[in-house]
Order: sequence, then C-alpha cells, then structure tokens
Amino acid sequence: MSDVVPLTDVRRLSFNQATAEKSSLREVIESCARHEVPSISIWRHKLAELGVAEAAKLVRDAGIAVSSVCRGGMFPAPTQAARIDRIDDNLRAIDEAAAVGAEVLVLVCGPSSDRDITAARAQVAEGIAAIAPHAAASGVRLGIEPLHPAFAGDRSCITTLREARLLSERFDSANVGVVVDVYHVWWDPERDAEIALLGHRIAGYHVNDWLVPARDVLLGRGMMGDGVIELRAIRTAVEKAGYRGPIEVEIFNEAIWARPLDEVMELTKQRFVEHV
Amino acid sequence: MSDVVPLTDVRRLSFNQATAEKSSLREVIESCARHEVPSISIWRHKLAELGVAEAAKLVRDAGIAVSSVCRGGMFPAPTQAARIDRIDDNLRAIDEAAAVGAEVLVLVCGPSSDRDITAARAQVAEGIAAIAPHAAASGVRLGIEPLHPAFAGDRSCITTLREARLLSERFDSANVGVVVDVYHVWWDPERDAEIALLGHRIAGYHVNDWLVPARDVLLGRGMMGDGVIELRAIRTAVEKAGYRGPIEVEIFNEAIWARPLDEVMELTKQRFVEHV
Repeated sequence: MSDVVPLTDVRRLSFNQATAEKSSLREVIESCARHEVPSISIWRHKLAELGVAEAAKLVRDAGIAVSSVCRGGMFPAPTQAARIDRIDDNLRAIDEAAAVGAEVLVLVCGPSSDRDITAARAQVAEGIAAIAPHAAASGVRLGIEPLHPAFAGDRSCITTLREARLLSERFDSANVGVVVDVYHVWWDPERDAEIALLGHRIAGYHVNDWLVPARDVLLGRGMMGDGVIELRAIRTAVEKAGYRGPIEVEIFNEAIWARPLDEVMELTKQRFVEHV
Repeated sequence: MSDVVPLTDVRRLSFNQATAEKSSLREVIESCARHEVPSISIWRHKLAELGVAEAAKLVRDAGIAVSSVCRGGMFPAPTQAARIDRIDDNLRAIDEAAAVGAEVLVLVCGPSSDRDITAARAQVAEGIAAIAPHAAASGVRLGIEPLHPAFAGDRSCITTLREARLLSERFDSANVGVVVDVYHVWWDPERDAEIALLGHRIAGYHVNDWLVPARDVLLGRGMMGDGVIELRAIRTAVEKAGYRGPIEVEIFNEAIWARPLDEVMELTKQRFVEHV
C-alpha cells in the first residue's frame, strides 16, 4: 500500500506482560524503564502477585503509562449465581485498572457454557451492561476484544470485529470500545471495512504475528515479522479510522518466554519499527 | 430448538476417509459395505494409491455412493506459471471425481502466498472460473468449503460462509456450491443467517465436533458428541435451507486414527443418530 507510513520510533509501543509471562511485573516495569519503552499492559495475576498499590507506585515512579489491564470478561456461566460472581470479579478488575491508572480494561468475553453460543452472547451483553456504569464512574474504558474463532469454545463467544462493534454500539463509545488484535482478526474478509466502521470506538491495538503452519493456537503466536499478517496494512486501516493510541505487543509463545527479558525487549523494539 | 427432528437411521451418512487416514481406500469401502454405510467421501491421495479405475470398480460393485472427492483448490501461488499448474491439477481432480461418480469436488481454496490475503482471494476466484466449465461438462459440482480462520495462513483464505456464498454467486449454482462443515463455521455469529441465504447452493454438509480446550486445530477434531458444537441446531438450519443430501463425517484426529476401522465405523454410526 502506498499510503503506509512506517513507524520510526517506539513512542507508541506498549509492552504487554503476556509477552514475558515468566517475568514478574516488577522485572517487566524495570526492563521497560531501562529500554525506554513508554507503556505497559498488565495482567491481573501479575498485579495480584505484586499487590495493586505497589504496582501503581512502581509504574508511577518509573514514569511508565499503563495502556490496559488484562482481563475482565468471562461473563457466561450456567447459573445466575455464577454470573453474578463473574460480574463482581469484573467490578474488582475495574477498581484495579483504575488504581494503576490504566486507560482500558480489556474484556475477553467468555465462551459458551453449554452448547448454546447464542445464549452465551446474550449473557455477555448483560454482563457488560452490569459493569459499564462502574467503569464510567472509575474513569476506565471497557475494551471488548473479539478473539480468534479458534477460542470460541474456551475463551470468547465474541469472535468477529463486526459482532464486537454491534455489541459496543449499545453503549457510549467513551465508556465501551473495541480492542483490535491482529492475531484475532487478520483473516476476516470484512476486517478493514469493520475497522473503518469502528472509528473512535477503537480502544486499543495489539500486534504480534500468525505463524505458518499453525498448530498450537494458544501458545504459538509469533513475533512481528515471523508470520503472514499484513501488519502495516492493518495499522494503516486502524489509523485511518482515527486511532493514534498505544500499540501493544502481546505474544503468547513459550519459545519467547524462555528467552532473557532484556533480549525480548530489544527484539520487540526492533521488530516494532521494522514490521509494525 | 423445538423444531429439531433427530436422525433415526444412517441413510444419509457418508464416511469421509479422513476419519480413517491409516486405512486404505479398499479397507474403507469394504468396511462401509459390512456396516451398511451407504456413502463415502474419497481423498485423492487414497485414490492415487489404489488407482482411479480400480476405485471406481470397487465402489460400484459395493453399491456405495461417492458423496465427494477431496480436494481440489489451492489456487493462490506467487507466479502465473505456478497458478496454471494448480489449475491443471484441479482439472485432473475433476476427471478423477467424474471417474468415481462423485457428486462434488470439494475445494479447499488455498492460503495467501505472500502476506496479501486480498490478492489470494482474487486468485481463488480466477482459479474457480478457469475450472468451472470443465466441471460442468464432467457432471461434477464444485463445492467451495470455507475453512476455519485458524487455517487462513496455510490452507484457505476463504474463511466464512458469507465469503464463500458471495464467491459462489458468481457462478451457476448447479455448477458451483458451498460445503458447510460444522468445525469450520460453528462459531460464526452469522452462521444460520448465511446458511439460509445459501439455500440450494449448499453442496455438502460435514459433521464432527470442536473439542475444548482447543490446542491442535489440525488434528484435534472430535467425534460428534465429544465437543461443544450445537450439531442438531446447525443441521436443522441446513435442512430448512433445503439441503437433504449426504452428511459426511470427517474427523482428523490421531486418537481416532489409531483405533480399529470397524470400531470407528460402529462408533460413527452410533454418534450419528445420537448427536447429528
């Protein structure tokens, strides 16, 4: 595409901790600071290990922005009591996101609970409606992340940009948006049209790559440049839609997890300007 | 769903050889005959082992119908010369399908060749246009099979029912249709609406199951009843659209491949009436 403008620096880079699952949150914050990576995304199990107050202090002292907290969601459940428990957990997630100054709480919406994906989708909509007011009051935007259809059975019944957009449109866009992750949406024939329709509803942009051949869809994500995704074409579509926020690098990959954190941080920065 | 009518016999069952990859075509034909399974689907590498003429004789003598031959397609390639080779191979596949009396040649359309899935889709359309006249003249219907998006990088850039339908609508429906495989489409929020729009364009219906958790998307398909797919709801949608043809059981699964063929055939029949 002739209208693609390469990134020349890492000012928009956010390092998602899923890329360094074996490291503690303290280690990732310190490595980001050493490598002048301006922003991070924090997972809740890492927040729980360190403590929310301590995490908030560390990122503040390091001058690092928190682009998002992962993850809320997982709304569908077989019983009403279980669904209420899930909502309560999401309210706590919103509090944690607010405490660390995160812009967005990413929602991985949850799978069907019993061979009825339509019912699960309705439960997701109810769940988001139940937590949206608390998110708004807390200054945290909810980001619905459609997941790759390979996760429809165990992580998210919301699988396409179109479905996520239609769901988000039930809410104020300042309160509820959509997170675009290239791994989940690169294959979609309606990808760029849906990104354009999202416009200011885009609440985050995540990059990584799709390796070929694909076997392990959970832990086989690739570093940018190692796979088949048209990264620059998708970023261009996202920017044309108006998004200029952080770009999170989120790579679930055991081979990358096994490498030293500082080496992964350097590689991430290099690939970010070369391929994103 | 109240309007679901269970299957009470195996008259519509077709055993796809992919469910018994370790067996020869001769063994599968003989087992189908023993178990009164009325129809099979044949893969080309198995046809090549046995010889097309011998295979045609065996199925004829056994009184077994051939619901389809798998697979044509794989149209995208980096060079024009390579694309012509692919088209030549598809013309041979049509001849083989005609020789064994198959109703349908299933098309697995092929992945993007170089980080440009849009270009790959155009090459698929060109490829189908190039072979459709020979298919029509040979009495073989082409069945575009949208594959699960997990295969977009290595098997098919055609990933959704909608995209397959729009592609098929460029051709006479008697010549080019769409194959609906539950594994590939169960997650799609537009699934039932698209099945209704397909109507008489449905050229085949394949069943199996989606296991949870999903890790190996290639060889981790499940036997019907072992996963999360709403099989009866989807069959009901397919029948409402007008399809009353064979229902192929196609399961790529190493654990099932390791079991004795006659045992798999019995299990297939049992699960077919219990779950499909």
